[in-house]
Amino acid sequence: MQVSGQAYRTIWFDEQTDVVNIIDQTRLPHEFVIVPISTSGEVARAITTMQVRGAPLIGVAAAYGVALAMLHEPSDKNLNEVCAQLIATRPTAVNLRWAIDVTREHLLKLPPAERAAASLARAEELAEQDIRLCQAIGKHGLPLIRAAAAGKQGGLVNILTHCNAGWLATVDWGTATAPIYMADNEGIKVHVYVDETRPRNQGASLTAWELGEHGVPHTVIVDNAGGHLMQHGEVDLVIVGTDRTTARGDVCNKIGTYLKALAAHDNGVPFYVAAPSPSIDFSLSDGIREVPIEKRPESEVTHISGLASEGRIETVRITPAGSAALNYAFDVTPARLVTGLITERGIVAASEEALAKAFPERVRKN
Amino acid sequence: MQVSGQAYRTIWFDEQTDVVNIIDQTRLPHEFVIVPISTSGEVARAITTMQVRGAPLIGVAAAYGVALAMLHEPSDKNLNEVCAQLIATRPTAVNLRWAIDVTREHLLKLPPAERAAASLARAEELAEQDIRLCQAIGKHGLPLIRAAAAGKQGGLVNILTHCNAGWLATVDWGTATAPIYMADNEGIKVHVYVDETRPRNQGASLTAWELGEHGVPHTVIVDNAGGHLMQHGEVDLVIVGTDRTTARGDVCNKIGTYLKALAAHDNGVPFYVAAPSPSIDFSLSDGIREVPIEKRPESEVTHISGLASEGRIETVRITPAGSAALNYAFDVTPARLVTGLITERGIVAASEEALAKAFPERVRKN
Repeated sequence: MQVSGQAYRTIWFDEQTDVVNIIDQTRLPHEFVIVPISTSGEVARAITTMQVRGAPLIGVAAAYGVALAMLHEPSDKNLNEVCAQLIATRPTAVNLRWAIDVTREHLLKLPPAERAAASLARAEELAEQDIRLCQAIGKHGLPLIRAAAAGKQGGLVNILTHCNAGWLATVDWGTATAPIYMADNEGIKVHVYVDETRPRNQGASLTAWELGEHGVPHTVIVDNAGGHLMQHGEVDLVIVGTDRTTARGDVCNKIGTYLKALAAHDNGVPFYVAAPSPSIDFSLSDGIREVPIEKRPESEVTHISGLASEGRIETVRITPAGSAALNYAFDVTPARLVTGLITERGIVAASEEALAKAFPERVRKN
Repeated sequence: MQVSGQAYRTIWFDEQTDVVNIIDQTRLPHEFVIVPISTSGEVARAITTMQVRGAPLIGVAAAYGVALAMLHEPSDKNLNEVCAQLIATRPTAVNLRWAIDVTREHLLKLPPAERAAASLARAEELAEQDIRLCQAIGKHGLPLIRAAAAGKQGGLVNILTHCNAGWLATVDWGTATAPIYMADNEGIKVHVYVDETRPRNQGASLTAWELGEHGVPHTVIVDNAGGHLMQHGEVDLVIVGTDRTTARGDVCNKIGTYLKALAAHDNGVPFYVAAPSPSIDFSLSDGIREVPIEKRPESEVTHISGLASEGRIETVRITPAGSAALNYAFDVTPARLVTGLITERGIVAASEEALAKAFPERVRKN
């Protein structure tokens, strides 16, 4: 999407220099910095430190990581080690494991000399596929926004989103944001309430930034505010992303998503999840019991970074020195609270039957 | 309660110097600073800037503000002006208006020469009454914690609270925290999950600080985390405060309280509200429609203050420069989500009937 009027993707390979370029998302919204990466170890670090993040993007980044490794050392041993290292970076999103497993299986069948080109082609294909998935989600989600606009005096549609399921979380377009960008592009009046999404503030620092750069009207709110806004009719539609959706439609997404789903349910506000099929894990059913929830450093809760008055990025402590903190990164929204999953094959009910019908080739036979 | 091993109240009058001393709550948790105040205008500013905050405490502070005004100029005109100024400081909490109205009515009947002493006595009495209310709430809430401890393997009771309804929000003991301090004092193993409570972070900066100073085990969590913890059985009890409770038991409290009430309800976790009767507004019924919700500056969302590495307090911007923000300070939890109101007269169901029965002298006759 647009940054200062220029179109960008979040990740791209430079064939002249054999490096992968990423946007360093830890420096947004205050600094827009492109970082070249030349080894799989650097990709793993970029995922761990969340320079790249978002379930779809880390899958693609990991595939590029494999390609960088194969460029330098295409042995079975290196392939297996690099794949294990990349899978270990983040535990919750399923796209990562899926992207790596499929890539590794494919490459192991090839002679080492062909692996560099094949893995690079594979990463490029994953990136293109991600864009196609997001565009399809946009296409299927757009009618929801159109309908909301048609049903409202003045036509202004207020959409609430949590965390960043924007183009920064994917290669382009985003998942939750794809319908929003398409609605905005076709002239529908949309306004987005952006949950700041503590502790990492990815709503305030990423979603607000990307919407602003692309010119979509939006307002940042604290995570506490969404319920109040819904009680007062200020939210027409909630659209969030997902890091892993189970076979029965439970949605694991950024911590706090569940609270917004409860509020939406309590106020009759439609609650949609933009769920590209690679984020659906048909091997799991009960999301609350089965999805591994990443526990991240306390420091993300106790400290926060921002722009100080002199233009420096400064990190400050916001809790008492003696107080412990706890930092789970995700929670699970039970399927019963989900109005629908916006997939690349259309809107699918959050149920085992509907998901199995929409993705019959993915369902595990017992 | 205890600060570095010494007992404090949040507000006290110094008869030698005719000043009211307060703890500057905007500088916690990083600095413990006592500020002497000598005029009603300074009291109004201290309430507006939230150096003193918390529904019970601002009522008492305002009464001291009237006393300071009467010390200097006890005319009807000054009394009326000062009362109007103090009432205008914060719109949501009802204690403030109540404290001022009662004080003003009382003073207008007295000759000006008697007003200084009478208003000071009135403020002192309000402070003492607030402590008695909190102690009674503690006494009535304590059995809930005792019962939870008795019912659990290991006896550890996990209590979640939102914002600061601690002793810092009152004169001493606190409302939501009174049962917790009493349980801790009698040796029950309590642990408090403290919602940081964006945007002003009064959970992280005030509740965590006061629990830490008094020695109560606690963990700071982001506002997004409570639902996940409840889904996993990590919360035995929620206790929050209230800025205004309506005649039918709707509870207006710090923004985000409603989301925790929804999660508690969804997971069968008891959700109690510590509600001293001065916070009950028997003139209102439907909290969502009738309680005025204070809208505060955007800057509380877009900027945050904390302790920089060199020991300075630094304010940093955490949102993109071009993004608007919206900042409602409170929300309303419908009575149906409230397990019970812990009042100074015992635990009362959140219903018109139960409240009228518990406080028959307060009910308005139509």
